[in-house]
Amino acid sequence: MIKVVAGVDLGGTHTAIGIVDKNMNFYGEESFPTTDYKTFEAWADKLTEVINRLCQKADVELIGFGLGAPNANHFTRSINNTANLQQWKTSENNGIYNIATTFKTRLGEHIEIALDNDANAAAAGEKIYGGAKNMKDFIVITLGTGLGSGIFVNDQLVYGYSGTAGELGHVIVKRNDRPCGCGRAGCLETYASATGICRTVNMLIETEPELGKDSILRKIAKEENGIKKSKVIHEAAQKGDPLALKAFDITGKVLGEALADFTAFTSPEAFFLFGGLANSREYILNPTLRYMEESLCFPFAGKVKVLLSDLLDKNAAILGSAALAWDSLDKK
Amino acid sequence: MIKVVAGVDLGGTHTAIGIVDKNMNFYGEESFPTTDYKTFEAWADKLTEVINRLCQKADVELIGFGLGAPNANHFTRSINNTANLQQWKTSENNGIYNIATTFKTRLGEHIEIALDNDANAAAAGEKIYGGAKNMKDFIVITLGTGLGSGIFVNDQLVYGYSGTAGELGHVIVKRNDRPCGCGRAGCLETYASATGICRTVNMLIETEPELGKDSILRKIAKEENGIKKSKVIHEAAQKGDPLALKAFDITGKVLGEALADFTAFTSPEAFFLFGGLANSREYILNPTLRYMEESLCFPFAGKVKVLLSDLLDKNAAILGSAALAWDSLDKK
Repeated sequence: MIKVVAGVDLGGTHTAIGIVDKNMNFYGEESFPTTDYKTFEAWADKLTEVINRLCQKADVELIGFGLGAPNANHFTRSINNTANLQQWKTSENNGIYNIATTFKTRLGEHIEIALDNDANAAAAGEKIYGGAKNMKDFIVITLGTGLGSGIFVNDQLVYGYSGTAGELGHVIVKRNDRPCGCGRAGCLETYASATGICRTVNMLIETEPELGKDSILRKIAKEENGIKKSKVIHEAAQKGDPLALKAFDITGKVLGEALADFTAFTSPEAFFLFGGLANSREYILNPTLRYMEESLCFPFAGKVKVLLSDLLDKNAAILGSAALAWDSLDKK
Repeated sequence: MIKVVAGVDLGGTHTAIGIVDKNMNFYGEESFPTTDYKTFEAWADKLTEVINRLCQKADVELIGFGLGAPNANHFTRSINNTANLQQWKTSENNGIYNIATTFKTRLGEHIEIALDNDANAAAAGEKIYGGAKNMKDFIVITLGTGLGSGIFVNDQLVYGYSGTAGELGHVIVKRNDRPCGCGRAGCLETYASATGICRTVNMLIETEPELGKDSILRKIAKEENGIKKSKVIHEAAQKGDPLALKAFDITGKVLGEALADFTAFTSPEAFFLFGGLANSREYILNPTLRYMEESLCFPFAGKVKVLLSDLLDKNAAILGSAALAWDSLDKK
């Protein structure tokens, strides 16, 4: 019988489930509204019903359950105080939903239960299903609203003393420069993220009035009170827009120089770029790689790769969650 | 019978040996001139004789052998192309001295043989004998001529893909600033090291003519064509010299801000300061700690310690080497 795990992407509005084997074959997928369930237990019952039904229909053996969510805590194996799941909070659970206990009870004691934050799930996804299959040391950088990271060192995810290691978006790259949501300034994610590149374009519109005078980005910014989506920058870049290309160059420089510094720390074999801005593919990859190489210290020169995630065009949220379970099973 | 290991500090001029148990008790120490031995094998024979004699005399059981040296390679368990051991190079060994094979043959197959570079040996020393005894995640920063580092993540030394992880001295903290020996500019070690603080004082002498006008450091710099030893800066600081105190403040600021960034990466429980400049104790520790706290991202605030190495006033080279063997034995 084919062995599978359930990969679960728990969002505030929808819960998506995929039944996946270790070779990335899907044996069923389903999603349902998270908000339809008034209690955590009712949601867990529904999820259990879906998983069991999909496995029975496909005639496969469930051996693991993986869940990736922003506030998932690997150590306590629970989801803690997530803003978008407040409706399940009771005086009893105090907003802490114990995934391990809940699903061991429902799916069986022998089922491997794994959960982690979404950046670590992305890293596990790359390890089990993506380009990091044969790597022990690598870092996945997610370029979304912010910059997240999942770090593998010696074949293990890095949690650190606090459990919250891998906050590479909050390494300071330009001290006292752009304000960051964390309350400080000059953090990497204020440049290298989907939001960061929008800020860079908005800055260029102000500071470089001669650059791309007829750029579509100037028009959009005027109409919409600033560039707010990195997608329009990508589309402009595809048309050779000089403002857009300059913004990718600036973003790649900041990111590439940071990756060179990260290399001196844990010496990864590769960095994988993932998330919204990574969908701009060569526009972000090429400058990042070039500036990283220029900035690397000599013992590392030519020894570290920058790659696009293999999961960019796949169902990464479900695959990352499933991968957490496979990675956990591999280490038994 | 008490179990011990031999800790060996192999220098170009002298080889120092200590027979040490896991509680830091010494059962014999000796040193001999490395240069007296014309071949690697003759040196190994001599070292074997000393170790066996010391163990017999103390009536202890040897179970391990640890060696720390700048060019020691943990993976190949050999010393490769060390400038100061060129006299042993033959057409046969090509300057690569295989420590594992050599001492397994001489001391016995059952003896645990460990070797590593000196920064990793210092980190192992902190783990086995020092302040990191109960820590799984910590970083030792050695502030000597340069800045070296040994990183523990999840109870393991970090080597990375290249085997040369932990080059934190070459993280760039002020881009395009001070030239570094690595050929780039603005590396952390150009500020935070015994050499770095000398450069800072020499800079202050030029750029701040009104600061510490009667400073002893100005006199020394004039007589000796610049400040060349951090010891004189420490002595001046003890007398309240404003130039010296300003130099420690600048050094601590650069180092503390870098430690805050490192925390976002692997989230250590503590940083340990070691090496020449760490002997200045509170003069370097206090500003480093203060600026790190000011710079930490909120999830880490108040959660990471900066400590002086417990081995500062001990025979750290031998203890670090011995610790490599104990750490290796612990992981069997």
